[in-house]
Amino acid sequence: MSGEPTITVIGNLTDDPELRFTPSGAAVARFRIASTPRHLDRQSNEWRDGEPLFLSCSIWRQAAENAAESLSRGSRVIVTGRLRQRTYETREGNKRTVIELEADEIGPSLRSATATVRKMDRAAGHTAAGDSQRPTRTAASDDDPWSVASPAGAAGHTGSDDEPPF
Amino acid sequence: MSGEPTITVIGNLTDDPELRFTPSGAAVARFRIASTPRHLDRQSNEWRDGEPLFLSCSIWRQAAENAAESLSRGSRVIVTGRLRQRTYETREGNKRTVIELEADEIGPSLRSATATVRKMDRAAGHTAAGDSQRPTRTAASDDDPWSVASPAGAAGHTGSDDEPPF
Amino acid sequence: MSGEPTITVIGNLTDDPELRFTPSGAAVARFRIASTPRHLDRQSNEWRDGEPLFLSCSIWRQAAENAAESLSRGSRVIVTGRLRQRTYETREGNKRTVIELEADEIGPSLRSATATVRKMDRAAGHTAAGDSQRPTRTAASDDDPWSVASPAGAAGHTGSDDEPPF
Amino acid sequence: MSGEPTITVIGNLTDDPELRFTPSGAAVARFRIASTPRHLDRQSNEWRDGEPLFLSCSIWRQAAENAAESLSRGSRVIVTGRLRQRTYETREGNKRTVIELEADEIGPSLRSATATVRKMDRAAGHTAAGDSQRPTRTAASDDDPWSVASPAGAAGHTGSDDEPPF
Repeated sequence: MSGEPTITVIGNLTDDPELRFTPSGAAVARFRIASTPRHLDRQSNEWRDGEPLFLSCSIWRQAAENAAESLSRGSRVIVTGRLRQRTYETREGNKRTVIELEADEIGPSLRSATATVRKMDRAAGHTAAGDSQRPTRTAASDDDPWSVASPAGAAGHTGSDDEPPF
Repeated sequence: MSGEPTITVIGNLTDDPELRFTPSGAAVARFRIASTPRHLDRQSNEWRDGEPLFLSCSIWRQAAENAAESLSRGSRVIVTGRLRQRTYETREGNKRTVIELEADEIGPSLRSATATVRKMDRAAGHTAAGDSQRPTRTAASDDDPWSVASPAGAAGHTGSDDEPPF
Repeated sequence: MSGEPTITVIGNLTDDPELRFTPSGAAVARFRIASTPRHLDRQSNEWRDGEPLFLSCSIWRQAAENAAESLSRGSRVIVTGRLRQRTYETREGNKRTVIELEADEIGPSLRSATATVRKMDRAAGHTAAGDSQRPTRTAASDDDPWSVASPAGAAGHTGSDDEPPF
Repeated sequence: MSGEPTITVIGNLTDDPELRFTPSGAAVARFRIASTPRHLDRQSNEWRDGEPLFLSCSIWRQAAENAAESLSRGSRVIVTGRLRQRTYETREGNKRTVIELEADEIGPSLRSATATVRKMDRAAGHTAAGDSQRPTRTAASDDDPWSVASPAGAAGHTGSDDEPPF
């Protein structure tokens, strides 16, 4: 037992997954899930939406490529993984701590969608997975697996200090 | 909080999902998942498969129809729901107790598969969900939700609408 | 990730925990939890009890000794661990499969109880843990860690075929 | 199903629980858990500690009083509940979002501790729970459940009775 708390979250992607590769070639996808709880209002006997939980998630390797190919903004997904804390420094030099989900598995929810599933050819290896649709690999220096984060991250960043510098 | 323990299981369907309808028209799908744990053998530093866990699951309403349409024997899935105990009588009149998973959400795992997701048209309602591909509805008498069930199942029925017609 | 589904169960012990030792001296405690779900009846706006889930659990090493010392029949507990399947043979030679919880952690629930907690002295090792109150160690052959199961198990067995031969 | 992701966390309290009461008399305890994951280093075949996860938790009603009475800084606990997001304003007027655990149940872990459990007398009601040891009730005005809160907390209050008075 590793001691990391496991958690399963059901929610909708707030954006298309962002796929990157480490210098050694490992794929990693990042995405955010909005999970909206519902409470039964006992006075009115009706379900009401609560404040959504926004959770940043990452998933590695083949699942990352498959998620980037199969899912998009708005997709309702089931994600299961481990809750983690990550500390980073803002541009102003302040430390920020965020809680994130390191996903082990992800899949589209079938609650209000159907899916045509294509199993990957194991023999062909992971390069066989829909090459034509795969997002272009981001160039990365060999020194720092996270050096790829800056240019694209800057382009996509939201200006919030609470955002990790992916 | 309902007090039912929640659980998420990753595994493969042992058969195609079996879709049925209650006399009142509610869809319910039943399926079994085989979940094989892996242990890191610290002597050999290799992963080894453990004894698989076989868990019977049921899911209701639209998700049931979507699961039956999207998944088949061998599909790797993520299922999340609540663990329940069900007691029934065998043909010989012995009581048996089984632990099952009442699923809240199911989706195909993207670990080694991609998926083309088709969101359902909410306006059209649940009858719009790929009628042409929907498994044939099992005939059921209007009097007894359990008429479609096997003899053993019928012996243990409670008459409750919350019991699946299997 | 080991792939075993993790689960947390809240419930009451149906009996005092039963403590045993393997021939090599490892402690293991077994116990059963009754977990009763509650459903909000939307018609009456009242909570109603559902059918309880009975789950057999085991926990190893120091936690086993501490659980046997601290908990008893009726204790409300929080147990977290991994769901497992175990196959065994009945006296009649029939195979039975049971789903059990291999607990990683257990503690008394503070919902309607208080607890005086005594941290163990790490320096003194696990033999320091309340020796005077520790249940007598069951003698066990050196050949089979489960050989201790028969005599005591027979004494405590319930006659049910569904019971594992602990 | 309420849709809030459930999670179980094992860890140590970073401080004594802080107990407060809403003007209407409902108890709520707040505390922080440090949960340190361990990873098996496959090179050295040794377990190594990862970066701890610090999670703020709150628990309500009788369990809050019992937790405050039974637990203290350093206590290893099992906490199970639902993950929630809370937004508040800093003194500088910046919005911050934190992820917290709304606990349903808490108990001291028996991994390396024993516990003497005292079940509460239901007849006597919650006021019977070890009054002599109960932390002093924080004075609170009857007008504002947030009057006991810090300035920053007050700035972000919603006036809802469901918000803890911190």
